[in-house]
Amino acid sequence: MGSKADRNGRAASGEFGLIARYLAPLARGAKGAFGLLDDAAVLDVPKGYQLVVTKDALVEGVHLLPGDPPALIAQKLLRVNLSDLAAKGARPIAYAMMLALPKREDAFLAAFARGLKVDQRRFGLHLIGGDTVKMPGPLTLSATMFGLIPKGGMIRRDGARPGDLVMVTGSIGDAGMGLACLQEVAPAMSQAAKRFFIGRYHLPQPRVAFGSAIRGVAHAAMDVSDGLVADLGKLCAASGVGARLDLEAVPLSRHLAQPARKDAALRVAALGAGDDYEILFTVPQAQLKRVKALAGRLKVPVSVIGTITKGRAVKVFDAGNRPVRMTRGGFEHF
Amino acid sequence: MGSKADRNGRAASGEFGLIARYLAPLARGAKGAFGLLDDAAVLDVPKGYQLVVTKDALVEGVHLLPGDPPALIAQKLLRVNLSDLAAKGARPIAYAMMLALPKREDAFLAAFARGLKVDQRRFGLHLIGGDTVKMPGPLTLSATMFGLIPKGGMIRRDGARPGDLVMVTGSIGDAGMGLACLQEVAPAMSQAAKRFFIGRYHLPQPRVAFGSAIRGVAHAAMDVSDGLVADLGKLCAASGVGARLDLEAVPLSRHLAQPARKDAALRVAALGAGDDYEILFTVPQAQLKRVKALAGRLKVPVSVIGTITKGRAVKVFDAGNRPVRMTRGGFEHF
Repeated sequence: MGSKADRNGRAASGEFGLIARYLAPLARGAKGAFGLLDDAAVLDVPKGYQLVVTKDALVEGVHLLPGDPPALIAQKLLRVNLSDLAAKGARPIAYAMMLALPKREDAFLAAFARGLKVDQRRFGLHLIGGDTVKMPGPLTLSATMFGLIPKGGMIRRDGARPGDLVMVTGSIGDAGMGLACLQEVAPAMSQAAKRFFIGRYHLPQPRVAFGSAIRGVAHAAMDVSDGLVADLGKLCAASGVGARLDLEAVPLSRHLAQPARKDAALRVAALGAGDDYEILFTVPQAQLKRVKALAGRLKVPVSVIGTITKGRAVKVFDAGNRPVRMTRGGFEHF
Repeated sequence: MGSKADRNGRAASGEFGLIARYLAPLARGAKGAFGLLDDAAVLDVPKGYQLVVTKDALVEGVHLLPGDPPALIAQKLLRVNLSDLAAKGARPIAYAMMLALPKREDAFLAAFARGLKVDQRRFGLHLIGGDTVKMPGPLTLSATMFGLIPKGGMIRRDGARPGDLVMVTGSIGDAGMGLACLQEVAPAMSQAAKRFFIGRYHLPQPRVAFGSAIRGVAHAAMDVSDGLVADLGKLCAASGVGARLDLEAVPLSRHLAQPARKDAALRVAALGAGDDYEILFTVPQAQLKRVKALAGRLKVPVSVIGTITKGRAVKVFDAGNRPVRMTRGGFEHF
């Protein structure tokens, strides 16, 4: 773990103690992490493989709500990065972390480290290094995550071709509704629905196994983090294509589908909601059967939601084939 | 570059524009960076090599002074990480960066990107990815830097053995005095001296070529960032040894040596000053001639400043062989 003098020419006080107590155990068993006692870590990349690198940050008040439980913050930090690796078809192996702490709170760190530990086990990861700094501002976290892919195997954003089917895993809009619940701007709903939505917001489910499975099958992929339509727009822009999206084909969870039957605006809003961390991907028509078989085997729901077109625009159509006008900030409708 | 929805469920507004304008040019020519348009980057590690990973963050008000020029901040961010790689004997190849910006200022970013560009060229690096986020707090930067070493070749912290010579590159205490100048707590001095010290504070000179050269020769190494004695203490702790340091042998620049002749406290303070980013290393006595030859060839000054001992403590002795008591916050003496 790196460290450096602060503006008073002093080393971050207690950094060594914090690292030893809460972070070093997370590096146990990681070859090349040197127990976080060195200035750098070493990664081996097996022959025939490449390293995939992703880096995603979370800032309290921007991506995190002030009351978010520390263990969930830790898991979210890992999972937003795991989701990127998943969409690229990579197998996660390790991560480095920057932890900028407003003040030193042992209780926060203990819970935070527990969250990291749970997900390290779940996803087969180790902490291999990073930097812990004082922060005269909001809690700020950044993880750099490392995965492996067979050489040349990364599923890129820019491979979509006209005629491809546009597909997505899981359901869309739940996390956005969870955020609306936490901000108390959601419509009335059952406690069970509320718990479901908030869970989807706090704890994304990166589709790691599915991402690996569609390597070599999908033409393009990315994770849905900024909203389905916005992210599809980026995928199309990178690929130099357009897309036609069928509003009714966008998969909604049972909890979201129910109110959406009465209020069509909820369905439109889901297209603009963020934090889903599902995989958006395109496949040639001929591969649909294979993709469905892979998804079935991994018990990951997948839906065909549109097609890639020649133009450059992403157009959304409703069941009556009428164009749907998207507005920014979909959740204002709730 | 990753991105994610903020607490209002919206994508970081304008992030794409910022990346395209200021950051994407820094990835030009970097294989596997995909023009920063994908969610992840890919790194190739040649056969027989390992990847060395370092991660160091800078926070305004902690490691940066509010008035620091943006281009120098950029260079410092790269150089604190380059210094870690240098001390490990690694050859830098690429970096990923988190940029948490208090508000979107094009002028800041333009100058910041210019600083990155200068040092990318100088050190043979490319930007390959990262995350740009809004920050309702101080400017916060984190870089994850990647270097290559022949397999098993990293110079570790924990290899020092009793009898090794303790050596250091360059001169010690200049950056600390530069910080004291910026904080207007430095003793009276010439403008030339002031410029020299402030330059050493703002722009560390990572010893990249020298670090590679002593791979296989040095038993242990780390960069001096928290202060010579503090960092030697860490190296000794990792290696399970102690050290004897000769106060008079610690190399001072011409500008610092002059006032230190009159005020012995300045020499002691230099041992506790941070931000030097020189390489502290240990070598067996038999290798001294070789190390001096390597240093001479690379025009890097090196000094023998002590020896590794069996105990666990770092002890400092003056010219009269009297023990010197170190206090924390050496620059209070100025």
